[in-house]
Amino acid sequence: MSVPLLSPAHPARTGPVRGSITVDVMTNTRDDFWCVIPAGGAGTRLWPLSRAGSPKFLHDLLGSGRTLIQATVDRLTPLAGERLLVVTGRRHAEAVAAQLPEVPSDRILAEPSPRDSMAAIGWAAAVIERHNPEAIIGSFAADHVVGDPETFRAMVSEAVAVARHDYVVTLGIRPTYPATGFGYIHEGASLEYDDAPHARSVVQFVEKPDAVTARRYVGTGEFRWNAGMFVVKARVLLDLLAQWHPDLAAGLRRIAAEPERLEQEWDALEKIAIDHAVAEPAADEGRVAVVRCDVPWDDIGDFHSLAGLLAVAARDDDADAAASDLYTVGPADVLGIDSTGIVASRSDRLVSVVGVEDIVVVDTPDALLVTTRGRAQHVKKVVDRLKAEGRTDLT
Amino acid sequence: MSVPLLSPAHPARTGPVRGSITVDVMTNTRDDFWCVIPAGGAGTRLWPLSRAGSPKFLHDLLGSGRTLIQATVDRLTPLAGERLLVVTGRRHAEAVAAQLPEVPSDRILAEPSPRDSMAAIGWAAAVIERHNPEAIIGSFAADHVVGDPETFRAMVSEAVAVARHDYVVTLGIRPTYPATGFGYIHEGASLEYDDAPHARSVVQFVEKPDAVTARRYVGTGEFRWNAGMFVVKARVLLDLLAQWHPDLAAGLRRIAAEPERLEQEWDALEKIAIDHAVAEPAADEGRVAVVRCDVPWDDIGDFHSLAGLLAVAARDDDADAAASDLYTVGPADVLGIDSTGIVASRSDRLVSVVGVEDIVVVDTPDALLVTTRGRAQHVKKVVDRLKAEGRTDLT
Repeated sequence: MSVPLLSPAHPARTGPVRGSITVDVMTNTRDDFWCVIPAGGAGTRLWPLSRAGSPKFLHDLLGSGRTLIQATVDRLTPLAGERLLVVTGRRHAEAVAAQLPEVPSDRILAEPSPRDSMAAIGWAAAVIERHNPEAIIGSFAADHVVGDPETFRAMVSEAVAVARHDYVVTLGIRPTYPATGFGYIHEGASLEYDDAPHARSVVQFVEKPDAVTARRYVGTGEFRWNAGMFVVKARVLLDLLAQWHPDLAAGLRRIAAEPERLEQEWDALEKIAIDHAVAEPAADEGRVAVVRCDVPWDDIGDFHSLAGLLAVAARDDDADAAASDLYTVGPADVLGIDSTGIVASRSDRLVSVVGVEDIVVVDTPDALLVTTRGRAQHVKKVVDRLKAEGRTDLT
Repeated sequence: MSVPLLSPAHPARTGPVRGSITVDVMTNTRDDFWCVIPAGGAGTRLWPLSRAGSPKFLHDLLGSGRTLIQATVDRLTPLAGERLLVVTGRRHAEAVAAQLPEVPSDRILAEPSPRDSMAAIGWAAAVIERHNPEAIIGSFAADHVVGDPETFRAMVSEAVAVARHDYVVTLGIRPTYPATGFGYIHEGASLEYDDAPHARSVVQFVEKPDAVTARRYVGTGEFRWNAGMFVVKARVLLDLLAQWHPDLAAGLRRIAAEPERLEQEWDALEKIAIDHAVAEPAADEGRVAVVRCDVPWDDIGDFHSLAGLLAVAARDDDADAAASDLYTVGPADVLGIDSTGIVASRSDRLVSVVGVEDIVVVDTPDALLVTTRGRAQHVKKVVDRLKAEGRTDLT
């Protein structure tokens, strides 16, 4: 049911490094919508569970039976079907392919090196643009957790409708607490689209705030969490990029047109986040919209966040589950006495915790971490120290 | 330089199960002094470092380069020379012999089963009594830490002098804090012995006190910690035992006389601590003396205690060492950030601790423990739980 498209010059090849795509024959109005899943980031603050060589999107952190990238694909398949591209690091392409057997291997774009989110998403956009310049792409990170998938997909559909008007559309998550770990979107007036009643203009994107500012943001009701989800026409994205970063846009389009140029061009691409490259300057020009998306969401940035998600999941499963229980990740053999927190184990050892509150224990074959939920952000310091000491086998 | 003595009926044998001894040819007045080292106890509150199969006396917990039993022998050899018997469980006899190559293997008495301290010490006493009924034995646990060995040996020598007057003599450790984990000795008047100026009568032994009582004890200056160290003539010990526990005394003497009866008699011996069997009733009869012994001492009862000892050792080595540092046991690969406490590792994994205070992390190949110094006493609960679940491979 899929036909090869694009790039007659593209040589036949196997393996994960690809720059061409095949697409379904279009059959309905949504067939111009493509999902792009950037799968990157080491998840440093989830060390030693998440490593450079085994990043968090490859893990089933919530014990759902699906890894984060699998759950991401599951969530988006009802919208995009097979129109899905994963962009990941070359070292992870094989693992990604193994976890996503339903995704044809030429839908997995393998980056020769990490060049940040603009290059990753822009590469996918350029590939899709060559197929259909008016195609709309939605970019969703491989390692986030999203609840209420029906509502989520309805909001993505609204975002697609708004993107048809050449907006860059972001999904704005309703803040449930004054988080200081996320950026915020300052929303403006409703865009009054009948097919996108939750769409509003964006006043601006704002950086991660301090605690006082975060409380103010949440208090006004005019701020949303920026979950890094963007819905935009492939052509619009690249044209906007060309406006502010012409070399990057041109490089990505050349690679899409001539995939054999990947090795030669990639490492010279500008390393920049999509937020800074396009979203923020486009917002200043009134080109960005936000769709209010009231679903549970988290980027599982650290073990504190993970423990909170596990507590929520436990309450969903068991009304009696206490917020102050001890939660486990993995098939851990845990003996807890008077303890709360989280134990993640990738070993078959007994892990016993006695009289510790909000503890975080992560047991892996070559590294053990003990910290607390309150210090979860500081786990990054361990990774920094290990890197400084040249112990990259552990990072 | 040693000649076989005793038991012509005793068959020649090899291996650790023995009931006969060889002794040095006596050359000076101290040659009637024998050291007995009971090496037992699982050290449950030091789990999983200390196990039933690998008790704490076999470990170098303080990083001194010598295990606790080795350090005990080192401490006593200047007093007793080769006149030393170790009494240990049959399963540990081989490990003890390997750690003490200088101790002839027939000086290691291997108990078929644990029958508490009276049977262990009494067996050694009965063996020594057959050699020399007037011999004085000093019993010192294999798993205690004693500082200032010169002073310690001087006090043992005073105890030997007092024991010649047929006293049961105990060493009373000056309390340095109102401990609730030790029994106390209520001391009376000086015994006025010229060769034992630190010797006093004993009013009574008292059980482990509550915190209020402990403070009162320490405040009076009349109470000493009972470190379970007893110095007494072999004959006196067994005769006193015969007074209150005639079957036990007779059984021990039969085993000493006919070592081949060990298997047959041992398991029927009464299971009782030497404190209850002899020391306490003898104190009621005015037969017990105490020698004031002002040396650092600890039984390393739990990880809180161990952490304190490591802190003291670090300060001795390095005047700048802070009491609030993170100390390690074993060749641990530890990366500590903003943390205090103790990490004991028997693995080659990296152990990283981040932002935790007074933490206790014990990393062994099959079991991991995380607790705090404040909860160190509760570690026993884990062992109890494992036993209840039949997981004795881990205890």
